[in-house]
Amino acid sequence: MPANAPLLPLPGDPIVAIATPVGVGALAVVRISGAGVHAVADSVFRKGNGEHGAIAASPGYQAHFGRLYDGEQLIDEVIALVFRSPHSFTAEEMVEFTCHGGPVVVQQVLKLLLDHGCRLAEPGEFTRRAFLNGRIDLLQAEAIGEMIHARTESAWKTAVTQMKGDLSGKLDALRERLLESCALLELELDFGEEEVEFQSREELAGRIDELRGEVGRLVDSYQHGRLLSEGVSTVIAGRPNAGKSTLLNALLGQERAIVSHMPGTTRDYIEECFIHGSTMFRLTDTAGLRETGEAIEHEGIRRSRMKMAEADLMLYLFDASSNRLDDEILDIRSVREEHPAARLIAVANKIDLQSSADALLERVEAQSGTETIGISARDGRGIDILLERMSFLVGGLDKLHEASVLVTSLRHYQSLRNAADALQNARELIGNHADTELVAFELRSALDYVGEITGKVVNEEILNTIFSKFCIGK
Amino acid sequence: MPANAPLLPLPGDPIVAIATPVGVGALAVVRISGAGVHAVADSVFRKGNGEHGAIAASPGYQAHFGRLYDGEQLIDEVIALVFRSPHSFTAEEMVEFTCHGGPVVVQQVLKLLLDHGCRLAEPGEFTRRAFLNGRIDLLQAEAIGEMIHARTESAWKTAVTQMKGDLSGKLDALRERLLESCALLELELDFGEEEVEFQSREELAGRIDELRGEVGRLVDSYQHGRLLSEGVSTVIAGRPNAGKSTLLNALLGQERAIVSHMPGTTRDYIEECFIHGSTMFRLTDTAGLRETGEAIEHEGIRRSRMKMAEADLMLYLFDASSNRLDDEILDIRSVREEHPAARLIAVANKIDLQSSADALLERVEAQSGTETIGISARDGRGIDILLERMSFLVGGLDKLHEASVLVTSLRHYQSLRNAADALQNARELIGNHADTELVAFELRSALDYVGEITGKVVNEEILNTIFSKFCIGK
Repeated sequence: MPANAPLLPLPGDPIVAIATPVGVGALAVVRISGAGVHAVADSVFRKGNGEHGAIAASPGYQAHFGRLYDGEQLIDEVIALVFRSPHSFTAEEMVEFTCHGGPVVVQQVLKLLLDHGCRLAEPGEFTRRAFLNGRIDLLQAEAIGEMIHARTESAWKTAVTQMKGDLSGKLDALRERLLESCALLELELDFGEEEVEFQSREELAGRIDELRGEVGRLVDSYQHGRLLSEGVSTVIAGRPNAGKSTLLNALLGQERAIVSHMPGTTRDYIEECFIHGSTMFRLTDTAGLRETGEAIEHEGIRRSRMKMAEADLMLYLFDASSNRLDDEILDIRSVREEHPAARLIAVANKIDLQSSADALLERVEAQSGTETIGISARDGRGIDILLERMSFLVGGLDKLHEASVLVTSLRHYQSLRNAADALQNARELIGNHADTELVAFELRSALDYVGEITGKVVNEEILNTIFSKFCIGK
Repeated sequence: MPANAPLLPLPGDPIVAIATPVGVGALAVVRISGAGVHAVADSVFRKGNGEHGAIAASPGYQAHFGRLYDGEQLIDEVIALVFRSPHSFTAEEMVEFTCHGGPVVVQQVLKLLLDHGCRLAEPGEFTRRAFLNGRIDLLQAEAIGEMIHARTESAWKTAVTQMKGDLSGKLDALRERLLESCALLELELDFGEEEVEFQSREELAGRIDELRGEVGRLVDSYQHGRLLSEGVSTVIAGRPNAGKSTLLNALLGQERAIVSHMPGTTRDYIEECFIHGSTMFRLTDTAGLRETGEAIEHEGIRRSRMKMAEADLMLYLFDASSNRLDDEILDIRSVREEHPAARLIAVANKIDLQSSADALLERVEAQSGTETIGISARDGRGIDILLERMSFLVGGLDKLHEASVLVTSLRHYQSLRNAADALQNARELIGNHADTELVAFELRSALDYVGEITGKVVNEEILNTIFSKFCIGK
């Protein structure tokens, strides 16, 4: 793990938080960290044999069975696990109390520690201290947050890989090579008038091209990484009353949208998530595509079109039993033309009411140039095939993250984009025989952008953004 | 802690469970217990330095930082806390893994341990093993369950006292004295025909009277103990449209019952809890008292009357602005006469619409013989005074449980009642100069009833009833 220079004096003031989820459970963990927390613990903890002062006298990674007392009032029987600086998560003195898991008990333990010299931790403050004290880098800190909030196995696996430091390692290696070129250029600048070249411009251009290639591959990996971390945004489009809400519910497996037979009921879009295999889909049910005079419905359609432009996957739903099939086919073709790069599936609903279903599907597929699947949203027919095709279209996410290091966070993506731009600029400057200062400046920028990701280069704003998203206790 | 003879072979098969509440949190604890769990842990855990086999080689109460692996797939970074038999909660080999707190991660850790030789624990199985292996008595096991589910500070304090073993100690002492008398009687029986008396019948009668007194005091304490553990059941009675639902909501501090101006809206009773000070009130809003022809409302009224008979506290609500005040006063008197032992408060609603409120309250109080308080359920006036009087009437529960050992569980109450009955029988038999066998039989019964409470005498049915109420992981 890379060592960062502490931005805050080590150790911090004593903080306390409930580290486990709120609710009824067998056990809960309340953790304290910072200067003097061993003394705080000793002021409220007595060992099973009545012994005082066990915590301060304890080696690290040692647990003690005993009781927490507020004066003479017994609070709970607990296990106190002692950590000594720097061998703890925050690198500070720490104690983790495992107490009984009832909401009232846990609050009592928290209150006891607040009354005895700790303050309530801010969201993410433990992890922030771990980062500031060089225990983990910023990528690993974010990975912890993502792991806790992961809703699919894929998202969890990506976070685990990031926590392990695979992406950190790759970025550190990149940065090392950038640093080398930078250092040579800056050495040239130090020699000032003498016009020495410690590396030929061809050599430098070659190095930069290699680095651009690697940064570019990471930038591109975000296309899949994002699907893993955020889920696949999926829009269900189609005419009013094609059965969009019913399909939404069939996919979700439960009734969440109000289904109605009045055309135009789904005025605005709603968003719901479901998991198929290890892929999370974020489903949006849009208002109908039909042009309308009503202002409120018009606004809904405007937003739907916006959603469609942003979607990773589009389902165009139509009523296979309708007598306006030619209009539907024209609509599908126009959606395909409007969004040529989109993953689009035409979905023929109410196929159960259709005698010659196969012929109909073939005709739509041929005339619209779009893969077409028949379903019945009402009785569930064809839904499993649709799910398979949806998963296939977004492309075997299960396999992907096992193969390579992926960028899954918008923040990392943006920094890498900036780094790629700076490298591109440097490359062009070399081609134009520009001044060494200008090339060095661009390389230095690229170095800083890469450094931002792992936290080699930090600013308070980035840290606040990252850690404010954490829960209290992490 | 008393040692119980194990009913099951020690140690049990390896079990696993998530011990912390389900949800998003920084940390979660997954625990394993039973024969061979150290080997199970070693098969999936590697220390930070890559070392295998750390768990089996570890002393108890020692924690290890490392990673869980399923083959080569990293599952999570964890702290593994090792317990060696018999120095663990269950008295078996145990390991507690503290992993990251996300629902997906925790499921992965659970799955890993299930795949490597553990089975999912039954509800309360860890605590059951702790009891069967003599680590805690039955009272303490129940106290753990009550502590986890405690919803008020009072209930938590009572559970903590019980966990500490105060009631256990009292019952063990009682049992010791009973045992002594029993032993002497049985010795007499062994001597058969010789008619020796190892204790005079007067002496024995005196001892039994003492024991009856003590058991009786414990039986009586249930009257208060129950209020602590279950809350104070409170019925709001009154005519239709007196504003009962509005009062209920004012007391609850939020809108939970639908309030309507149609008389007879609250057809059945609903029950909601709220906490004032450290007392929990369970509020029931009853259908009106009015006689009615409608079958459904009639049934509601029947149930309401039943609820009133069982209630710890009754609020009779009436409309102070009504012109049928004399009828209301008659109703209050009849409720008082029907339930002479009940704690009853007459509550005059809509006092804000009344110009001479004080005179009205005095008149109702004088004529109904019942404490009367004026409120406005609509604007909240007088609600705080009503809450104070309600708390006062159920009698300073805060103080009570600090003063003495209370019986809070119906199971303990019933066993104590049975013990008291047996002692009463023994006492009468002695008075009637009955055979020694008969007296000894009753004393032996009393002994068994007391033993049932702490688990000196157990049967599978009692254990199943107790532990099935626990959550998995406890």
